Amino acid sequence: MTRIALDMDQVIVDNYAHFIDLYERRHGRRPHPSEYAGQKIYALEPGGAELAAERFRPGFFRDLPIAEGAREVVRELNEAAEVLIVTAREFRNSLADKYDWLQEHLPFLHWKQFAFVGAKHYIAADYLLDDHVKHLRTFAGQGVLYEASHNLGNDEFPRVRNWAEVRAFFQTKGVLLGK
Amino acid sequence: MTRIALDMDQVIVDNYAHFIDLYERRHGRRPHPSEYAGQKIYALEPGGAELAAERFRPGFFRDLPIAEGAREVVRELNEAAEVLIVTAREFRNSLADKYDWLQEHLPFLHWKQFAFVGAKHYIAADYLLDDHVKHLRTFAGQGVLYEASHNLGNDEFPRVRNWAEVRAFFQTKGVLLGK
Repeated sequence: MTRIALDMDQVIVDNYAHFIDLYERRHGRRPHPSEYAGQKIYALEPGGAELAAERFRPGFFRDLPIAEGAREVVRELNEAAEVLIVTAREFRNSLADKYDWLQEHLPFLHWKQFAFVGAKHYIAADYLLDDHVKHLRTFAGQGVLYEASHNLGNDEFPRVRNWAEVRAFFQTKGVLLGK
Repeated sequence: MTRIALDMDQVIVDNYAHFIDLYERRHGRRPHPSEYAGQKIYALEPGGAELAAERFRPGFFRDLPIAEGAREVVRELNEAAEVLIVTAREFRNSLADKYDWLQEHLPFLHWKQFAFVGAKHYIAADYLLDDHVKHLRTFAGQGVLYEASHNLGNDEFPRVRNWAEVRAFFQTKGVLLGK
């Protein structure tokens, strides 16, 4: 059975929706993506550093919104393939938060499908959907790049911009049934 | 470089040392291994169920002792190979505890070398050292069985009984220098 590894942050989870709301509350306006194109939102000056620091707050990863359409497409993939949620745990506090988040937002997944890893090349899978080129480069299977401000312009991997495109990608691969 | 995945519980961590102490405090005697040969210590009757429940207590995984010799041999392996600590996280509370435990007892490892996974066949490595036959059976690389009461008699994998034998095993494989 095809095994598909899915990254969480900025792929299944819409971290930036929260960051942009937070920025607006503190600075009175919503930053435009062109202000941090080619970089992460933490590059905003001023205001980016406090967004970066936010990740260390216990509870931060618990309350983030799910990306639009992710729940349905992950459910479809889970019925057609072996799905594995693979997330780095740079932030010690994020472990339990992410576990609880997954149980709330993707309750049809079993906890055995969650992997909290330090490096993604340790994962044995056919596909890895991730927003970081560095992770896709060291992954042994087929990398799929989920678009984010910090990966614009990279053309090393198939690119998807939203979950409708994730569905379409796996339809072309025969993992999901076509339209 | 050779990649070696090491299980934590009952391999690097001496969980039973704690369980046996706890049993003695509650029942006034230390159980003999023959009382649970072929099974886990939770099979003790009475007393086993409360040991099993102990695993759900926040902090349980934080205070367990390291297995004799493990620290030195893991250090040697870490210098000669790519070491990855792979542990299941059945117990939600165990995530942060295990992370802190690893930082205390194996401080020479980077957090990127820790993987908290639901199923070990997702791990891409050359060797997996584990006390569970079921994990070794689904692992794509070479399994090495660390002896425990519940795996006595199994002969599907090379068996090691302590960390001196782990060192000797990897010497025969050329990963560590011979004596």
